[in-house]
Amino acid sequence: MKDTVWKWAGRTAGLAILSGVALTGSAYAQEASAVSAYVDNSYLFLISGMVVMFMAAGFCMLEVGMVRAKNGATQAVKNVMLYSIAGIMVYLCGYHMIYPAGDWIIEGYLSMPQPWSQGPLDEMQGDYAAASDWFFQMVFVATAASIVSGTVAERIKILPFMIFVVILTGFIYPIQASWQWGGGWLSEGGFSDFAGSTLVHSTGGWAALVGALILGPRAGKYVDGKVNPMPGSNIPLVALGTFILWLGWFGFNGGSELAAGDPTAINDVSTIFANTNLAAAGGVVTAAILTPIIFKKMDPTIVMNGAIGGLVAITAEPLAPALYESIIIGAVGGAIVVFTVPLLDKLKIDDVVGAIPAHLFAGIWGTLIVAWNGGDIVWQVIGIVSIGAFVLVTSTIVWLILKFTIGIRTSEEEELEGLDKYELGVEGYPEFTK
Amino acid sequence: MKDTVWKWAGRTAGLAILSGVALTGSAYAQEASAVSAYVDNSYLFLISGMVVMFMAAGFCMLEVGMVRAKNGATQAVKNVMLYSIAGIMVYLCGYHMIYPAGDWIIEGYLSMPQPWSQGPLDEMQGDYAAASDWFFQMVFVATAASIVSGTVAERIKILPFMIFVVILTGFIYPIQASWQWGGGWLSEGGFSDFAGSTLVHSTGGWAALVGALILGPRAGKYVDGKVNPMPGSNIPLVALGTFILWLGWFGFNGGSELAAGDPTAINDVSTIFANTNLAAAGGVVTAAILTPIIFKKMDPTIVMNGAIGGLVAITAEPLAPALYESIIIGAVGGAIVVFTVPLLDKLKIDDVVGAIPAHLFAGIWGTLIVAWNGGDIVWQVIGIVSIGAFVLVTSTIVWLILKFTIGIRTSEEEELEGLDKYELGVEGYPEFTK
Amino acid sequence: MKDTVWKWAGRTAGLAILSGVALTGSAYAQEASAVSAYVDNSYLFLISGMVVMFMAAGFCMLEVGMVRAKNGATQAVKNVMLYSIAGIMVYLCGYHMIYPAGDWIIEGYLSMPQPWSQGPLDEMQGDYAAASDWFFQMVFVATAASIVSGTVAERIKILPFMIFVVILTGFIYPIQASWQWGGGWLSEGGFSDFAGSTLVHSTGGWAALVGALILGPRAGKYVDGKVNPMPGSNIPLVALGTFILWLGWFGFNGGSELAAGDPTAINDVSTIFANTNLAAAGGVVTAAILTPIIFKKMDPTIVMNGAIGGLVAITAEPLAPALYESIIIGAVGGAIVVFTVPLLDKLKIDDVVGAIPAHLFAGIWGTLIVAWNGGDIVWQVIGIVSIGAFVLVTSTIVWLILKFTIGIRTSEEEELEGLDKYELGVEGYPEFTK
Repeated sequence: MKDTVWKWAGRTAGLAILSGVALTGSAYAQEASAVSAYVDNSYLFLISGMVVMFMAAGFCMLEVGMVRAKNGATQAVKNVMLYSIAGIMVYLCGYHMIYPAGDWIIEGYLSMPQPWSQGPLDEMQGDYAAASDWFFQMVFVATAASIVSGTVAERIKILPFMIFVVILTGFIYPIQASWQWGGGWLSEGGFSDFAGSTLVHSTGGWAALVGALILGPRAGKYVDGKVNPMPGSNIPLVALGTFILWLGWFGFNGGSELAAGDPTAINDVSTIFANTNLAAAGGVVTAAILTPIIFKKMDPTIVMNGAIGGLVAITAEPLAPALYESIIIGAVGGAIVVFTVPLLDKLKIDDVVGAIPAHLFAGIWGTLIVAWNGGDIVWQVIGIVSIGAFVLVTSTIVWLILKFTIGIRTSEEEELEGLDKYELGVEGYPEFTK
Repeated sequence: MKDTVWKWAGRTAGLAILSGVALTGSAYAQEASAVSAYVDNSYLFLISGMVVMFMAAGFCMLEVGMVRAKNGATQAVKNVMLYSIAGIMVYLCGYHMIYPAGDWIIEGYLSMPQPWSQGPLDEMQGDYAAASDWFFQMVFVATAASIVSGTVAERIKILPFMIFVVILTGFIYPIQASWQWGGGWLSEGGFSDFAGSTLVHSTGGWAALVGALILGPRAGKYVDGKVNPMPGSNIPLVALGTFILWLGWFGFNGGSELAAGDPTAINDVSTIFANTNLAAAGGVVTAAILTPIIFKKMDPTIVMNGAIGGLVAITAEPLAPALYESIIIGAVGGAIVVFTVPLLDKLKIDDVVGAIPAHLFAGIWGTLIVAWNGGDIVWQVIGIVSIGAFVLVTSTIVWLILKFTIGIRTSEEEELEGLDKYELGVEGYPEFTK
Repeated sequence: MKDTVWKWAGRTAGLAILSGVALTGSAYAQEASAVSAYVDNSYLFLISGMVVMFMAAGFCMLEVGMVRAKNGATQAVKNVMLYSIAGIMVYLCGYHMIYPAGDWIIEGYLSMPQPWSQGPLDEMQGDYAAASDWFFQMVFVATAASIVSGTVAERIKILPFMIFVVILTGFIYPIQASWQWGGGWLSEGGFSDFAGSTLVHSTGGWAALVGALILGPRAGKYVDGKVNPMPGSNIPLVALGTFILWLGWFGFNGGSELAAGDPTAINDVSTIFANTNLAAAGGVVTAAILTPIIFKKMDPTIVMNGAIGGLVAITAEPLAPALYESIIIGAVGGAIVVFTVPLLDKLKIDDVVGAIPAHLFAGIWGTLIVAWNGGDIVWQVIGIVSIGAFVLVTSTIVWLILKFTIGIRTSEEEELEGLDKYELGVEGYPEFTK
């Protein structure tokens, strides 16, 4: 922020130097300007954070709409719970692991009014309110957990899933995020991932992929080499979820500018909004054109997932591309969803909501294509591979430990009757089915 | 913005003139103030644009709730697609047609980082970030397309509808919008339409009316002079859609102030929020009182549409009215919905969601009543008639070309079985019906 | 605001005093700074007000999901209506009763452009745009009415409920709110209720409790000492409602800071966001742990209500607690929900959505625990008791008058067949049931 203040101040600096007296007046102006920028930057985190928080509702609606009615309540409550757990884990350890700041759990937490604060909160600390940044980072972490939730739906037990969420949001996500956003080795090397195509979406996607592999497919999904469709029970809610996610993505990418209080920053945020929107649009239109060609009829869930694919693809670099480039980047993201959804089925990897195509595969694409606008392709690959390997290994360990201790999968009988009945005793739609 | 800066600066100008040295200090302050206003103005577009974008979800929910279950997935995916197409068309030509700025497609697009930009993006360009304005205008265009979608639901094929959306968002809307918001002949003459009762809502409404006439009513809707009710399948989603639209309207009307960075502007935006809310409330209460009187029982869909009627009515002038005037303007908007929904049925015009009453008829009312607060009634009529005539003629041409080339209507068999089955092969609620 | 400006100005005041000339420059800076803060403060009300307005949709979805399908449309339209009525009543009398300002109905309303304004609107009036504050206060009042709506669902007639909403939002709420937020005797005494655990949530909760008692339970709910579960028809909508309420609560608590335009204020708003989120998370996790222990299986509606309980609990003081304290305060709020939901059933008080546990009981807890961070426990009790007594007495009078005049309860036949059929003639989900 100080840079910015000085940049603006610099315009009239020539004149100002002539008069020490006038500099006193300008000192007021600089302070006023710094306060204003501090407020505007914090607002960016708060507003963006709110819509990213609302993405939890978007994931929830998308996933509930994609599962069968007998699992509706389970999928709904899981999303409420995972968002809650993510917040608490980011507080307990995640935030400090992403940004290692010296004050670790023992010394940092219980003794202070706020874990992020070393001093009183009535002054400017850096460029924005520390708590606004905390809020924004927290909702990001929740996103990664939401991605896993959709893939492993309809056959995972609630408890082990929640334990996985604890580990993912408290440890796996923060460690790899610290490599880049914490100023770690990836960021020093030259990896570039603006809002987290890899750090957030691929991380969620890798964890989901391992989960799907270790869990196995839903009962009856792949029988005698045939793929049995298990259509989502509530497509309108999938559309609602898609729109909510789309809305949240303006905050996801726009907020990742980390500043809004000077002309460059707010111009950037605005450009990011436009690029983000067009990438999603490109994904939708591409999927809407491709699915009738490939599957004979348009598949609405893949068209909607095309939006997600486009959004994930632009997330690694939503600022630098021209608008037409954003459309293309998003269109490829949408196409990736169209082509990899049946691919997973061929591999008998059962991803209930298509999260692996939309978040992992489109996320890899988005991270690579940063090279189009100045990214170093070698470091992009290093980032993808290193984070992928880390998440793959750690997720595998966690999923396997859970599998061989408390177990992760519901019984086939429970699965056939529906998790709502067995896990909750409350059905999602008690009057609509049968 | 400069005006504002100077107005504020002017207060102490008398003193300042005494001292050229102090003016150097004040130059800093003016620059700081201009930066702050630039950021605040851009924020208005971004925040307003986000909630207006979310209106796409509102229309989607309202429409999905109003169609029968067999068309739920089709209606949902159509809304995702039309919003996407609107964004791309605004990029490809709409924005430049609304604001003719000299840089046309060939020279303006591929060669530059951003189509709206002639220079680097790290400086202030005018009063707000150009891309924030682009985003705000883009979501407005999408709104017009959403209006059409509801009216022609349940019997239109997806492809011709999407082609209509391409023409509407890329050409019909931008041309008439340029007459007013592009500084064209209507605005020079004295027409007044603050946020688009006519430019957005009536435009969508006229296009919908022509579509309904050329498509004809749904099979079985009007038989032997009787109107067969075809009740919406999911009234709670209609309520959700209504609330989302109501939320979005704060951005729709408030953002149309185009500035928020000085006291007058933010006072205006705030007044607009209050007026907008009360107009919607007036529409709801009026419809809630009238429908039990007229139809014997309260009709929840008309009560909810009363909110839309009130909102559309206040859109042409949400700033000047006193709060009580806003309630009255909205109440009449709601009453118009109550009285014209059955009127359309009498005329055998089948409007599935009641968009023509709420957007076209209430939009005409809202545009006329601007005269109450200083509008020139003659120019209001000229605006309504000229835009109406333009949209009527162009929409008719497009709908007729589509009808006689690729066809616009599904077969009666498809219609009876439901579009989800024929157009998509994926049903909206596979487990809830039958 | 002036305080703030001066605080910042004060830092360089020592130097400034040396030079009258430089003070001229600093006058610009102070004015620029005041404008910027005025805009930022107003933005807080507008943005917060928007998400609090959206809480009306949250309540609507939560309630619609909790009622049986036969009452879905009734519950939906009631929520649209009550929000509308609240807005009009706040305009007609509520706002002036909360903040008695001398200009009462006759002199204040029809003669002026805006009821809140004594002068032109193009200048700064105080610290924020008056209309932005009006908007924010208005949506708060609506919240209280929404709380009642859920408890008395499924057996109350629409008309008497709406009359109750008129009295609640126009008189009961404003009178007690004036005691605290209008600078009345409670605030002078030392009662502390930052965003309204008592003023908003308990007020709604007391009114709901009386309503439930006077209405009596739903037919068949308590038979022969047994509690018959009447499961909600659409749990995914309950989750959606929960997320929307959670989102809105950032505005509810954050906006209650009443300022954002200086470092202290925006730091506070940011801290409130973090605390609010963690309190909700604490409520969810607690309910998720407790319900399987107490009820054998996890109850998703109680887990979701745990979020509401946590949010209500932190509302009385969302700023002072450390993050870990917020988790604890919210966790107790969630636990209260878990333990008091069955308690109400034991007392045969039929609260359809669990609003009394979440809003009244957790609200009392939240108000008491303010003492942890400096509140005066005696005045906290005085506030709870006095407002409770006032709302209890006035609500009882209104409910009884309604009961013995137009009647408040539908016939048992109507109740069994569903209110949608009798009150509306339009069903919520005509194709999904039977």
